[in-house]
Amino acid sequence: MPSETPPPAAAGPSGGAGPSADAGLLSPVRAGTEAEAATGDAAYLAAMLDAEAALARAQARLGIIPAAAAEAITAAASAGGIDVADVARRARGSGNPVVPLVADLRGLAGAAGEHVHKGATSQDIADTGAMLVAARTRRVLLAHLDRALDGLAGTVARYRDTPMAARTLGRQALPTTFGAKAANWLLGCLEARERLAAVALPVQLGGAAGTLDAYGDRAFDLVAAFAEETGLDVPVLPWHTRRTPVADLAAALAVTAGALGKIATDVWLLAQSEVDEVAEAAGPGRGGSSSMPHKRNPALSALVRSAALQVPAYAQVVLAAQAAPLERPAGEWHAEWQPLRECLRLAGGAAETAADLVCGLEVSADRMRANLDGLLDVLGDDPGTGAASALADRALDAYRRSRA
Amino acid sequence: MPSETPPPAAAGPSGGAGPSADAGLLSPVRAGTEAEAATGDAAYLAAMLDAEAALARAQARLGIIPAAAAEAITAAASAGGIDVADVARRARGSGNPVVPLVADLRGLAGAAGEHVHKGATSQDIADTGAMLVAARTRRVLLAHLDRALDGLAGTVARYRDTPMAARTLGRQALPTTFGAKAANWLLGCLEARERLAAVALPVQLGGAAGTLDAYGDRAFDLVAAFAEETGLDVPVLPWHTRRTPVADLAAALAVTAGALGKIATDVWLLAQSEVDEVAEAAGPGRGGSSSMPHKRNPALSALVRSAALQVPAYAQVVLAAQAAPLERPAGEWHAEWQPLRECLRLAGGAAETAADLVCGLEVSADRMRANLDGLLDVLGDDPGTGAASALADRALDAYRRSRA
Amino acid sequence: MPSETPPPAAAGPSGGAGPSADAGLLSPVRAGTEAEAATGDAAYLAAMLDAEAALARAQARLGIIPAAAAEAITAAASAGGIDVADVARRARGSGNPVVPLVADLRGLAGAAGEHVHKGATSQDIADTGAMLVAARTRRVLLAHLDRALDGLAGTVARYRDTPMAARTLGRQALPTTFGAKAANWLLGCLEARERLAAVALPVQLGGAAGTLDAYGDRAFDLVAAFAEETGLDVPVLPWHTRRTPVADLAAALAVTAGALGKIATDVWLLAQSEVDEVAEAAGPGRGGSSSMPHKRNPALSALVRSAALQVPAYAQVVLAAQAAPLERPAGEWHAEWQPLRECLRLAGGAAETAADLVCGLEVSADRMRANLDGLLDVLGDDPGTGAASALADRALDAYRRSRA
Amino acid sequence: MPSETPPPAAAGPSGGAGPSADAGLLSPVRAGTEAEAATGDAAYLAAMLDAEAALARAQARLGIIPAAAAEAITAAASAGGIDVADVARRARGSGNPVVPLVADLRGLAGAAGEHVHKGATSQDIADTGAMLVAARTRRVLLAHLDRALDGLAGTVARYRDTPMAARTLGRQALPTTFGAKAANWLLGCLEARERLAAVALPVQLGGAAGTLDAYGDRAFDLVAAFAEETGLDVPVLPWHTRRTPVADLAAALAVTAGALGKIATDVWLLAQSEVDEVAEAAGPGRGGSSSMPHKRNPALSALVRSAALQVPAYAQVVLAAQAAPLERPAGEWHAEWQPLRECLRLAGGAAETAADLVCGLEVSADRMRANLDGLLDVLGDDPGTGAASALADRALDAYRRSRA
Repeated sequence: MPSETPPPAAAGPSGGAGPSADAGLLSPVRAGTEAEAATGDAAYLAAMLDAEAALARAQARLGIIPAAAAEAITAAASAGGIDVADVARRARGSGNPVVPLVADLRGLAGAAGEHVHKGATSQDIADTGAMLVAARTRRVLLAHLDRALDGLAGTVARYRDTPMAARTLGRQALPTTFGAKAANWLLGCLEARERLAAVALPVQLGGAAGTLDAYGDRAFDLVAAFAEETGLDVPVLPWHTRRTPVADLAAALAVTAGALGKIATDVWLLAQSEVDEVAEAAGPGRGGSSSMPHKRNPALSALVRSAALQVPAYAQVVLAAQAAPLERPAGEWHAEWQPLRECLRLAGGAAETAADLVCGLEVSADRMRANLDGLLDVLGDDPGTGAASALADRALDAYRRSRA
Repeated sequence: MPSETPPPAAAGPSGGAGPSADAGLLSPVRAGTEAEAATGDAAYLAAMLDAEAALARAQARLGIIPAAAAEAITAAASAGGIDVADVARRARGSGNPVVPLVADLRGLAGAAGEHVHKGATSQDIADTGAMLVAARTRRVLLAHLDRALDGLAGTVARYRDTPMAARTLGRQALPTTFGAKAANWLLGCLEARERLAAVALPVQLGGAAGTLDAYGDRAFDLVAAFAEETGLDVPVLPWHTRRTPVADLAAALAVTAGALGKIATDVWLLAQSEVDEVAEAAGPGRGGSSSMPHKRNPALSALVRSAALQVPAYAQVVLAAQAAPLERPAGEWHAEWQPLRECLRLAGGAAETAADLVCGLEVSADRMRANLDGLLDVLGDDPGTGAASALADRALDAYRRSRA
Repeated sequence: MPSETPPPAAAGPSGGAGPSADAGLLSPVRAGTEAEAATGDAAYLAAMLDAEAALARAQARLGIIPAAAAEAITAAASAGGIDVADVARRARGSGNPVVPLVADLRGLAGAAGEHVHKGATSQDIADTGAMLVAARTRRVLLAHLDRALDGLAGTVARYRDTPMAARTLGRQALPTTFGAKAANWLLGCLEARERLAAVALPVQLGGAAGTLDAYGDRAFDLVAAFAEETGLDVPVLPWHTRRTPVADLAAALAVTAGALGKIATDVWLLAQSEVDEVAEAAGPGRGGSSSMPHKRNPALSALVRSAALQVPAYAQVVLAAQAAPLERPAGEWHAEWQPLRECLRLAGGAAETAADLVCGLEVSADRMRANLDGLLDVLGDDPGTGAASALADRALDAYRRSRA
Repeated sequence: MPSETPPPAAAGPSGGAGPSADAGLLSPVRAGTEAEAATGDAAYLAAMLDAEAALARAQARLGIIPAAAAEAITAAASAGGIDVADVARRARGSGNPVVPLVADLRGLAGAAGEHVHKGATSQDIADTGAMLVAARTRRVLLAHLDRALDGLAGTVARYRDTPMAARTLGRQALPTTFGAKAANWLLGCLEARERLAAVALPVQLGGAAGTLDAYGDRAFDLVAAFAEETGLDVPVLPWHTRRTPVADLAAALAVTAGALGKIATDVWLLAQSEVDEVAEAAGPGRGGSSSMPHKRNPALSALVRSAALQVPAYAQVVLAAQAAPLERPAGEWHAEWQPLRECLRLAGGAAETAADLVCGLEVSADRMRANLDGLLDVLGDDPGTGAASALADRALDAYRRSRA
């Protein structure tokens, strides 16, 4: 299934993005991550080409176009040779990149060119391509989230009974355990994972008016075959003007970024010089400062937090774009693309970064004890850690059930 | 179950909000709606008092406090006499309204006062109160959404085969049917309904450090009893620092507002003078202009759209607040309250307004035909409406299954 | 000039907002503040009535309506007796509160009623009313900002040479002084003040189509007289569809909230138990916890931060609403009202709260020294505080120049 | 002055961004525009290198480093050979791209390497680099805005007296003129231009603690010399923790995008099939549809609107990041970079696109007349266009004054 394979290298060399392109210089949280590779312009280009090829194959299965044409289109779609920056520039004429992409693909497909994009509209390919990118990015995101979950489960178990001060509004409140704190990190990620994994990622196929007008009585069979060829879900209706799929996806990614951001926020605060209860893993090139060789910064936490502070704003653009005019809006749809990509890319980068953070976290039970002693002095006696250890157990139970 | 009853009038007269208060003057989309009544300051005050009373009853069931004390606290909590504006002002001292509220409730509860708020922290009551408000508001919201769904289903069925022009980027594209258009409205609301109804609304109980430290080995029994007394869900862990419940709720409300906003956007555009295919129901005081007696404005659409344009921004504040420090943040939690209320109130007001809009919508099949004829002249021949009627049927099937 | 007087009590008793109203229970940052009083529904109602009265007086000056009618309208506008909740509910019919308000005012004005709202459209009164509210709220906001500036200037001067650790990513970096830190707080507030004070707040007058069609060749004289009667600025053109005034105001309020939020964030972090270098002023009902009598929380900081985390999201709704359809949008305009109010109210409440915070801040130079010693141990020798004291002087110079 | 020159091609070939990079495929509003070239990763890399070179030259002028070293550093900074994708990946270790960039530059500078980045911290270079990018992008943005202003002024003058229907909530209201409508477009852009041109773009220089500790009594002379070498403004204080410069810039860009979005929204609505009063310029590859050869879409309007719907959300992230911890935050600063870039890039792309849109706009006075006749039939008589022509004149006066 196409969604199980990595984006083809097709758009690679010839699809080079050129000197104006972004390579993550301003987004280190995703620089070099798997989510970045899965969401770049080349990946989108490849996904849209995959969508065209899948549509052709689905149409061939139903006898709408010749089987040889579908083969030729599939070959052309993965042959490379399309210049992504050129497509982007030509997209200005029509307002979307599918118009020039179809022109290029028709050129590459030779005699089969006339069968490319049959009965489809630009939005069918752009939306289906976005869902393919989403499916591929979700797969790597969930894998990193699983790695984080495994790491967190280990942390919860290991520090189940390790006492430390709980802090509210920055002030020491009462004792808790590090296991109880990490239990909430674990459960938050678990909930985000379930939420994200449950989002439906359907193909979009409707044609110019959303009526599947070109396909006669094969319309719904074609939608099902198209879904099968792409590995995506079958929608009840075309969703060109009903943006629940992207709205729901963006919301789930914002919840995910938030769950990861919570961990990073706590780590940053516990890693402060005066608290010093945890530290990010040391290593070459890690946590360095350009001016202070003595410093060891919670750099991964800062990166994860940078994502958690951005993704909700991008999700909002997608959510607000639901209220869009008629059969295709003049702007709301176009405004979705980049923010949705950023939601995928930043949440994915945050998941990979957070997994690294969690798995390498250094914990000082001694320092926790020492800080707590200050609180116990104030309190006069030790109120104990209540149900903290039991909370850790409950989170571990939930984790184990989710893995079963 | 408390969540099944309307907010007590307790906070009514004495709880009058005074001349600085908001009554919806700047939010007509919710003015006078059921969601407004369910989300005002009096409703929040009542919900927090309900939470204190439910906690007392749950503790009495487990023998943590005397049964008579729970009865006295419950009576005091519903006796009225707490001034909401005064509580709000005193909240500035502690940063949240529960500290003064507990003081007032203790005063009202007489000898039982010492048993008020036992082992709880402010956030337990504020968060549980918010969940009670959410449950109550969701109930009325879903009822109005159901009314809208019923109206939409009627529209889809009635106009299943009524041809009209589909419009992309504002330009006539190809024929569709009004039933197919309304089918997507219907399905969007249906998806939003399922999404919102599925959101878990748990009680929050953790105590000062989130460890349930005051309750010994009765801790989890108490959480379950507390949930039972409030009618809310049982959480796996206290969620004072894991904000999935509010994040998920805000996201679902944004999806809901968007689904309603889509309808309103289409109605506004179809109701333009030059298009004139639909009109909002006429009536006294409806759609009037202060300067132009000849006008009939799509006023309900404007109101629903005003909500759809705001709710995503408010949801974003809630989503971004997930990345919050330690056991209680100094600001992120406090920043959640008003935006979450606005999400509930505006989405609820939009649902009531949209139900009115949909149920009263006037449709001119003749005008649709006339506008379409312009397109057919351009096209030269009539390409037909494709699978439009079948799309209407599929949406109706989904609607019927959801009602079964 | 009306903008120099407090909102009339007119809308007081009879304008009572009822049990669904908000009194700040979920927004303690503004509960009981001057900004709250200046921005409530009663204040908006009064401002819209003031706008109608000012329009009548301006028209009387130009002979458009009789002088006696203007007097009668002015008297009716300040007589009270209009029920704000009732107006809000009736606003649902037309989509805005001016339609019912004009009806009520005409009723109150007796024989002069026919001269009410002459040649105006709803938006003229709603927008001018909003600008009056903005002008009144800005006045109190700037006064509190000045109080904060005075307090900060004192802090900068007093702690000009007090050494402390600078902290980057939460880790001690190098020495600075508390005066240098506070210098940036001071300068940030100073810049925000200049930015906010410079925002133009014009009257809006255009009539139904924005062409001032009802006023013949007196149109521009009338706009100028209207501005004079209200104390607001004269616009170049009616701005019903050019939303620069509200966009610019919202942006300036977001910058202001951010400058205040920066201070609160630093105070919260310096007030942590393990850092303990500053504390908010103690006092009855200040910083208390409902569960932990031993705690002293940075409650004011949390409140100011709650505003700083919200205002940008509200400003965004206003900024996004600029791209609005034709001569009046169906939703974008309506979506502006509540977020703009929240920008004013939260920024105003934050200014009052931050002034309290700053003026009562307790600073422990000893603790700063002790924490710094830990850093100096790591560094091996004392690099000194560089130009820190000179930075303090530069900020004080800027402050003094602004006061001259 | 560097800010007057285009970004050096230095980072070109070797700075190629690779297959994961973005080339605008999802942002056609900026694909191939001047703003895109000015804001890509290569432009940021070049700007940071320019900042290092300028700092070295400023230090040489003050005798802090040898003149020959400054020359060598300047040469190395423009020699190319730094791989932007590699820098981006290595930025993950420290959390920002300056740490690896400094390492690479030192390598390229040979013996002068030890003088690179003297006394500076990462944020000094990243922030100054961002301001250089902002200055360069603002220059091209303002040029396109001027082109739009010139085009709009022509439109206002030409259609000063051309009658058309004003429309409120989508319904025809009263007559206006197209010149009066365009007058508000013109004035909105003029106000945005003034706002944006007035934003200060200062260098940032503070060193590790913001105290300029490494420069002794030459500190302020160095800041001034650094500003001179870069062509940027001199700040009162280092602004590493006082984010007014970026907040104010983001806000001004959001206002600009909104002013452009207003035009695009009106054009889209006036270009609807049933209204048909304006059309975007035709041309090869313009306004095409992948499925409907008969259509001519307002594609440029859709692109401009796509920017106007996104920029406020990105500005919000920057505005909210003002409330950031201590001398450098763990996330808030990092969260600013990409949204600020998008504000610059999308507003810049929107300005270029809007200038094209405005300058090529086709206007049908006949169709305006025909649509208006429908309204006049309803009204019974012709109320005239009021002061519409005079409004056009006032806007043209403001335009001419701004050009004087």
